[in-house]
Amino acid sequence: MSAKPEVESDKPIRIALLGAGTVGSQTARLLVEECDDLARRVGRPLELVGIAVLDPSKVTADWIDRSLLTTDSEGLVTRADIVIELIGGIEPARTLLLKAIESGASVVTANKALLAQHGPELYRAAQDHGVDIYFEAAVGGAIPIVRPLRESLVGDRITSLVGIVNGTTNYILDEMTTKGLQFEEALSDAQAKGFAEADPTADVDGLDAAAKAAIMATLAFHRDVRMDDVPVEGIRSITADDIAAAKAERRVIKLLVVAERTDQGISARVYPALIPDTHPLASVRGSFNAVFVTAEAADDLMLYGRGAGGAPTASAVVGDVVTEARHIAQQGMGPIIPMYARIPMAPLEASRAAFAVRFLIHDKPGVLAAIAQVFSREGISINGVNQDIKPTMHDPGYSGEIQQLRVVTHLCDEVTLRRVVKQVSTFDSVTGQASVLRVFDQDAL
Amino acid sequence: MSAKPEVESDKPIRIALLGAGTVGSQTARLLVEECDDLARRVGRPLELVGIAVLDPSKVTADWIDRSLLTTDSEGLVTRADIVIELIGGIEPARTLLLKAIESGASVVTANKALLAQHGPELYRAAQDHGVDIYFEAAVGGAIPIVRPLRESLVGDRITSLVGIVNGTTNYILDEMTTKGLQFEEALSDAQAKGFAEADPTADVDGLDAAAKAAIMATLAFHRDVRMDDVPVEGIRSITADDIAAAKAERRVIKLLVVAERTDQGISARVYPALIPDTHPLASVRGSFNAVFVTAEAADDLMLYGRGAGGAPTASAVVGDVVTEARHIAQQGMGPIIPMYARIPMAPLEASRAAFAVRFLIHDKPGVLAAIAQVFSREGISINGVNQDIKPTMHDPGYSGEIQQLRVVTHLCDEVTLRRVVKQVSTFDSVTGQASVLRVFDQDAL
Repeated sequence: MSAKPEVESDKPIRIALLGAGTVGSQTARLLVEECDDLARRVGRPLELVGIAVLDPSKVTADWIDRSLLTTDSEGLVTRADIVIELIGGIEPARTLLLKAIESGASVVTANKALLAQHGPELYRAAQDHGVDIYFEAAVGGAIPIVRPLRESLVGDRITSLVGIVNGTTNYILDEMTTKGLQFEEALSDAQAKGFAEADPTADVDGLDAAAKAAIMATLAFHRDVRMDDVPVEGIRSITADDIAAAKAERRVIKLLVVAERTDQGISARVYPALIPDTHPLASVRGSFNAVFVTAEAADDLMLYGRGAGGAPTASAVVGDVVTEARHIAQQGMGPIIPMYARIPMAPLEASRAAFAVRFLIHDKPGVLAAIAQVFSREGISINGVNQDIKPTMHDPGYSGEIQQLRVVTHLCDEVTLRRVVKQVSTFDSVTGQASVLRVFDQDAL
Repeated sequence: MSAKPEVESDKPIRIALLGAGTVGSQTARLLVEECDDLARRVGRPLELVGIAVLDPSKVTADWIDRSLLTTDSEGLVTRADIVIELIGGIEPARTLLLKAIESGASVVTANKALLAQHGPELYRAAQDHGVDIYFEAAVGGAIPIVRPLRESLVGDRITSLVGIVNGTTNYILDEMTTKGLQFEEALSDAQAKGFAEADPTADVDGLDAAAKAAIMATLAFHRDVRMDDVPVEGIRSITADDIAAAKAERRVIKLLVVAERTDQGISARVYPALIPDTHPLASVRGSFNAVFVTAEAADDLMLYGRGAGGAPTASAVVGDVVTEARHIAQQGMGPIIPMYARIPMAPLEASRAAFAVRFLIHDKPGVLAAIAQVFSREGISINGVNQDIKPTMHDPGYSGEIQQLRVVTHLCDEVTLRRVVKQVSTFDSVTGQASVLRVFDQDAL
């Protein structure tokens, strides 16, 4: 076997950057400021050959050489060895990445929305054209998650992933917990502080988390999993009452991504759940993210760190760039993303859980009995009922005091549970919207 | 650029295994049981061509094909594409790995002692011969630590690593904390349960942790760091009194690996330290390991999981085997390990810390004043003094009651601190051995 190619060549590896927003400008900073170190880690210099932006006049970062700025993104992607895509969204990102791949460039992207919808096409396109695709920054910011799933655990059989991968919802739930705020108050506060977007839909409705779930599940289970395969519930319906009830039970509410191998196939879900306050995920606060992975041989792993932010995300992007640049310097390739597994997505019913359901009721004799009867008729066993916690909501159409009735079930399937909740909600004595939360513990998973 | 080589070739990639102990037999199990899945993840079949052991009659695992067993390890390493070394120790492991590398095989090893002494030679030999060396299992069992340092964070500037990477000492300190045991009792108990070796030196004296510190520091700081560069203190001198004093302050004692970039160079150390019981590392119990990494752009990361055990360690080994097999299938290479940084190892004095020093004294008037004067004369400022905790030790040569005097300093350098302790220990009124523990907090680091 021949010796490694001479890696101390002077020929620069050409890097093109699409986007100069928060992450893009931090990525440019690392590439410029760490230039000498990166060259020594790769064995060849890296040269930033262009930065495509919509409006060059809006780029203000002083470490960006203005002569690199261009609006011709289509032209730029054909004159680079590595194209970094940080513009987000589906188009034109998808078309630009495909064009880069077709012209022989490897690509690095942080675009979770794109990968969750079109990842498998991009993975196959890269393989077909003999180039690599890296995307560590698409899940969990700076935290090594993609690489451990793609490489470290590739000799093992992953059984489940449970993660907190959305900082905005984690911050909002934290604020509701520590300050007793209602969801809307905590959201406004998060928006005012820049932790939530003006349009918070992607975060609070769980879509961002679902995208990350699809990406992780594809890697973990060697099967094409798309965002459409991931049923999702967000946190809009969580109330201060739910948080208070959780606290009384020494639990916290977290928006979880859960992907698991079940008897009936792969299940990937996003939902808010009650977890014990002693669980390691319970102490993941604010913008931090964490993913718990369980594999047959490796057992439990947790990967924890900054899930967002310009510099942390740029760290992951540049890590991928250096990894790919080393492949180019050595005329090698990164790992393919195999999607060979003939295993179905599990039906909704496959995922059984204990649930905590909170109804708002007009307390009249017989209400509890009537509700319990619906659960019983559908075969759902009740673990406990609690009527202690005073609700903070009021029903203008009702003169008496509103009571909060909280029912915690034993393990049951969600389809049946939802049917029960729907039936109970039609009762005259039940008002407002019921809250349904999974009770997460290792057994139930 | 040409398309990727046809990866669905049928030609097997030949794997040789050296050693069939706890980790070796689990590695063989994964290679045999997951054979079909691994082939699809690589794109080519993996074939276990031989297992070298000292005594084939002692191999009992029923998944091991006995016709694969051989005592000719030197012959085996020359007829494989990937050689897995799980025999441990320096020789013959070093010679066998060099022979494998020279004959064109890539190597995977879990041998921390070897890498901590001869890693840089092996890394250079692999690079010179155009083969790869992977060793995820050498640090932290199943936890992805080596790969994140080598690849994920390669675009960033790591400032510090703080880790719990030895399960035996972590178990012993846990038992001392929860059951109030003395070190010797907890050690015997750990030995009886199989959590500590009959000769526990490598673990309790911190040598195993120091080896891992050297390996991680080489990767983190791009500089050759050997075990000899890592000053080490073990946990033999920790007493039940130290644990009790820590508890009273809401701290726990953990054996830490600390590697950091200081003004005066790279410092890598192993020592027992007091950490707040709210620190994430405080809740790393028993055989679990965790490493905290801080980098300029990525900020804080924590990687947590099973630090030892046959199956978890085998998971990391087979992850490396698959990674390398993919490179071979695609005629590519893994990353080099650059050691270009011209940065010295920091002198002992460069690492400043707060210390908690516990003296056993015969309480006579003026003892405290005399002790305080030594600290003052050497310029070490005292943060607090505590004489409340009754010692559990007795001095047969002294009829009065022995007192425990605990002095907590402000930040100072260790060389001066050790000189002070030595002086104070010569006092007639001071008996037994002083205990010196660093007080670890993020600022002091």
